[in-house]
Amino acid sequence: MSSPTTTTAPAPAAATVDQLAIDTIRLLAADMVEAANSGHPGMPMGAAPMAWTLFSRHLRHDPSAPEWPDRDRFVLSAGHGSALQYALLHLFGYDVAEADLRGFRQLGSRTPGHPEHGDTPGVEATTGPLGQGIAMAVGMALAERMLAARFPEIVGHRTWAIAGDGCLMEGISHEAASLAGHLGLGRLTVLWDDNRITIDGAVDRSSSDDQQARFRAYGWHVVEVADGTDVEAIDTALAEATADPRPSLVAVRTVIGHGAPDVAGTSAAHGSPLGPERLAEAKRRVGRDAEAAFVVPEEVRAECRALAAAGHDARTEWEGQVVALREAEPARAAAWQRAERGDLPADLDDEFWAGVAASLPTTPLATRQSSKAVLQALSTALPELVGGSADLSGSTGTDVGTRPVGPGDYSGARIDFGIREFAMAAVLNGISLHGGLRCFGSTFLVFADYLRPALRLSALMRQPVIYVLTHDSVAVGEDGPTHQPVEHLDSLRLIPNLRVLRPADAQETAEAWRSALEHTEGPTVLALSRQGLPALPGRPTAGHLTRDGHRVVRDASEPDVDLVASGSEVALALAAADVLAGEGLAVRVVSVPWRERYEARRTGLGAATATVAVEAGTTLGWRHLADAVVGVDRFGASGPGPAVLEHVGLTVDAVAAAARSALQARRGQ
Amino acid sequence: MSSPTTTTAPAPAAATVDQLAIDTIRLLAADMVEAANSGHPGMPMGAAPMAWTLFSRHLRHDPSAPEWPDRDRFVLSAGHGSALQYALLHLFGYDVAEADLRGFRQLGSRTPGHPEHGDTPGVEATTGPLGQGIAMAVGMALAERMLAARFPEIVGHRTWAIAGDGCLMEGISHEAASLAGHLGLGRLTVLWDDNRITIDGAVDRSSSDDQQARFRAYGWHVVEVADGTDVEAIDTALAEATADPRPSLVAVRTVIGHGAPDVAGTSAAHGSPLGPERLAEAKRRVGRDAEAAFVVPEEVRAECRALAAAGHDARTEWEGQVVALREAEPARAAAWQRAERGDLPADLDDEFWAGVAASLPTTPLATRQSSKAVLQALSTALPELVGGSADLSGSTGTDVGTRPVGPGDYSGARIDFGIREFAMAAVLNGISLHGGLRCFGSTFLVFADYLRPALRLSALMRQPVIYVLTHDSVAVGEDGPTHQPVEHLDSLRLIPNLRVLRPADAQETAEAWRSALEHTEGPTVLALSRQGLPALPGRPTAGHLTRDGHRVVRDASEPDVDLVASGSEVALALAAADVLAGEGLAVRVVSVPWRERYEARRTGLGAATATVAVEAGTTLGWRHLADAVVGVDRFGASGPGPAVLEHVGLTVDAVAAAARSALQARRGQ
Repeated sequence: MSSPTTTTAPAPAAATVDQLAIDTIRLLAADMVEAANSGHPGMPMGAAPMAWTLFSRHLRHDPSAPEWPDRDRFVLSAGHGSALQYALLHLFGYDVAEADLRGFRQLGSRTPGHPEHGDTPGVEATTGPLGQGIAMAVGMALAERMLAARFPEIVGHRTWAIAGDGCLMEGISHEAASLAGHLGLGRLTVLWDDNRITIDGAVDRSSSDDQQARFRAYGWHVVEVADGTDVEAIDTALAEATADPRPSLVAVRTVIGHGAPDVAGTSAAHGSPLGPERLAEAKRRVGRDAEAAFVVPEEVRAECRALAAAGHDARTEWEGQVVALREAEPARAAAWQRAERGDLPADLDDEFWAGVAASLPTTPLATRQSSKAVLQALSTALPELVGGSADLSGSTGTDVGTRPVGPGDYSGARIDFGIREFAMAAVLNGISLHGGLRCFGSTFLVFADYLRPALRLSALMRQPVIYVLTHDSVAVGEDGPTHQPVEHLDSLRLIPNLRVLRPADAQETAEAWRSALEHTEGPTVLALSRQGLPALPGRPTAGHLTRDGHRVVRDASEPDVDLVASGSEVALALAAADVLAGEGLAVRVVSVPWRERYEARRTGLGAATATVAVEAGTTLGWRHLADAVVGVDRFGASGPGPAVLEHVGLTVDAVAAAARSALQARRGQ
Repeated sequence: MSSPTTTTAPAPAAATVDQLAIDTIRLLAADMVEAANSGHPGMPMGAAPMAWTLFSRHLRHDPSAPEWPDRDRFVLSAGHGSALQYALLHLFGYDVAEADLRGFRQLGSRTPGHPEHGDTPGVEATTGPLGQGIAMAVGMALAERMLAARFPEIVGHRTWAIAGDGCLMEGISHEAASLAGHLGLGRLTVLWDDNRITIDGAVDRSSSDDQQARFRAYGWHVVEVADGTDVEAIDTALAEATADPRPSLVAVRTVIGHGAPDVAGTSAAHGSPLGPERLAEAKRRVGRDAEAAFVVPEEVRAECRALAAAGHDARTEWEGQVVALREAEPARAAAWQRAERGDLPADLDDEFWAGVAASLPTTPLATRQSSKAVLQALSTALPELVGGSADLSGSTGTDVGTRPVGPGDYSGARIDFGIREFAMAAVLNGISLHGGLRCFGSTFLVFADYLRPALRLSALMRQPVIYVLTHDSVAVGEDGPTHQPVEHLDSLRLIPNLRVLRPADAQETAEAWRSALEHTEGPTVLALSRQGLPALPGRPTAGHLTRDGHRVVRDASEPDVDLVASGSEVALALAAADVLAGEGLAVRVVSVPWRERYEARRTGLGAATATVAVEAGTTLGWRHLADAVVGVDRFGASGPGPAVLEHVGLTVDAVAAAARSALQARRGQ
């Protein structure tokens, strides 16, 4: 743990405390980058005035309680400017000490190169991959509205983000801003650090957008600040943004590396330390000791202390509102508190899941349809579960009749994300980071590629977002190779902290949902079939899939062959087992909805002579687990599903042949 | 092969040939979907008038020569409307016969569910993953300008795309349109099928964008057509688009499923067959025989024949221009012809590459810097090589001093893609599909996730796009886990048809570039280091890496241990080999820039007792190739590169320990 001790110094008499604070932020950021000999001084130096004005006059926060549920959220979408955020957190008394600033970008520090949620008190989101911060802010602003609709007595805050040109060039800025405009998220304000410089040079080297006009086209309110060093103008603009019922873009014209000799206003200020001479001169220019680093004037510290105290008072007042709610309506207050903690309702227990299991049909059913039945049950049993689809709610089985959210009414649980997979995932991250809700999104598995950068952030931030990804193989059929996932299951399993579950029938689908909901340390992918799948023999027992990752669906003592499969291929493996059994072989069939857990737990099975894995996807990730893999190492084709399966070699004959060969090879050893 | 025989029928007297053709397109599309019992009739029925007007009055094409280099390009970005394109190709006499239409969405047909480049004459791009068609059209329009700047005598055509609401909601529409506006691609026209319906329902369920205003904000010219059935209005709008020097968006208000009883104007028309009764009624409404399918009135056929003949004449005239150029400037004509064929210059031979190899330093150098040196040599030796970076040209070593392209001058070779990775990749696909140029793009390896959906299309379409992806491991250091690739190498290797090369030093980097350039059947990823890497012992011989995928950099007869590594980890493996050799072990070290080829060819090595693989990425894809893998199955961390490497266990000690354990285990067997 670090303590908030710091160096202090008297300030020149003439400067306002605002100016002193802004200079301090600039120099702290430059000192950090200099100490690390790595990082981005330009953005913090240019954006210091807007960030200071936001933190000192508009942001509702209590540095002593960074997890206060009703705090305003702040996201630094231009994450490379992390030193700006660390300087502010330090000044306002978050648990970020001078020693932490001095440890900028060092291993194990709470001041990593980009803001990392979980590493630093006050950092609401991991940013750096450009554009995603805006979308996560949209998710936070949406979560606020949805919770305010449910708990108006105790929820009512705002969401702020600072974005750079890179964020606005990225496509996700379009998806997220369009969605925010449509949803009327008036409590969202994005400050655009309009410094007209990117890493490679001037913005006009690669962009001629009229960003203001673009955001107006999304239904946003746009305010401009011509001089990004003018605190009063920024203050006025932020007040206008707050007053307007639409989401607001505050376009603030800045100079990158403001105050840095030679390099201010150029890309040279973007991503390199200023160097000792320039840094010393920058300090001299604002009347500071050129030799001293990490200096905070006492006036600035006092001002921040007072502001933090005001934030503390606001939180105390809010705590009173929570107490009032608890006294007036203890059940509602308890429900809010439970969801805020991330706990599931107590009655989402074995009995509930047994009821769900009993309600599922035993006739063949696509796992996307089984998933819909489970989601239907959850829509009443888990009121904080919200989510939707990127315009495939019918196909993915995620439209279970809950009401959509939108301007005027955010009390529903359905989010219509539109054809915006990437923003969907990033918005889900924002909702999850906000707290108080559990969330899911859905699209076709093949389009996991579109949202992959945000799914990676779900995993990096360990957010329990649930991804319902259907049409999970070449069996999709007629839509052809652009719509047929092949490499996607394996490619998702590569992402650290991500649980990838591919259930084989209705019962396993229910278990997979349970596993996903009970997993709070990271995201889960549910890979579900388009086509109908038969009910397998036996049922997974409660928690079985999560514990073992697999179950035996056809047993054999001293098996000659293990057929190991996931999802739709378990039925294929069973059919092949019948053929092989007819030839006198002892065949065991293992359903593996969770491969990584199977790998860790499979020793409990006892070994078969030979093992063959079967999955309608790339074979790479199965090869070390089996003597042979029947899979798909090529793109699919357009045609009826069964024809495509045969075309790519996913047939009973192929599985049986692979088993015979593997067994022969093993016996010949 | 299919022959262009078709059923013909007389038409009602009153209808114009335009109306007859439009009705025919609508009904052919509906017949296709009906026959397949699968597909999307709504889009073709709504967009038939704009598509007919484009094909009959504006598109410069010769159906008898679908590969005519100076043809106009047409991209159906709304790829689910493939039946529209197939109907047009059939009518205009491309080699798409009635039998092909009847085989819609069947295995092996030339009429797959979504347009697949290579499957169907006249299909310029594989579409279906929404939004990418627009971006590929931008790439084609850019390629046209760049080639027109080089060969004005024989290049001068236009690019057209039809996009739907889904395309416009996707983030890539922002990136691509912004880039097109910035680059001033006035020969690009996007027709927006503004039917206000998506799969899930009305567009206004999820979007409130003012698309016209948005495109104006990108510097586009916008024309509106209020009635999407008004051929003259569409014609006028397309003429205006042609006349305007900016890229044009033609917003055409349509009714999805126009002419389909009950379902027209609703999402029910989007993705399901009309059903026999509705289809029969649709035919009756336009005076057709309700019982007959795939009928083309003779007037329509005659009209299309005449139009195709005019296209043929245009091409013949153009052939004359080529002859004239060939006579006047045979060298220039030959250069154009060679690049058009996709052949490399004859002097890019062993001697050239030996010269490149000799010019490379033997001191430690990051492979991104080695790549820059190679690219520098190629910038003069391979004039058709164009490309750039998503705002990381300095970091990725791709700025070699070539001039940028932009309004007024497209003669340069550098494309500043801006912070738009996804559009970069899709634009590269468009450039490659256009022909006449070779192209590359660059960003950090971790941001391969941002462009992955387009990289997948490069691979599916077998386009030889080169992806220069640098900063290829956790050794990136201070920028932290958001900027440190971990799962990316393996996840890219999963994509069919994609060559992933990770060279270990300057010489291997040159070989990797050569391999990428000589590979014309698919894309190549060059994964390159940020940090300096020593020159390895020995040099790869010409073509060696492409043939074997590996080379021995430290040999041993009858090795106890093989250390197999790629890229930056080869030096690590060599250091570990020294340690192990000091303990008396015979250790061979194998550099594996191309893992899949190594896997196929490694038997030539002769087996070591134990094999350990080392790579700064996920271990999954190596496990079947080695007894142990030293890799990174977790997210990275922010800190200096060497500290991060130690933190995640990529050390000499760890490799040596893994080798000892693996050997012990093998010997204990």
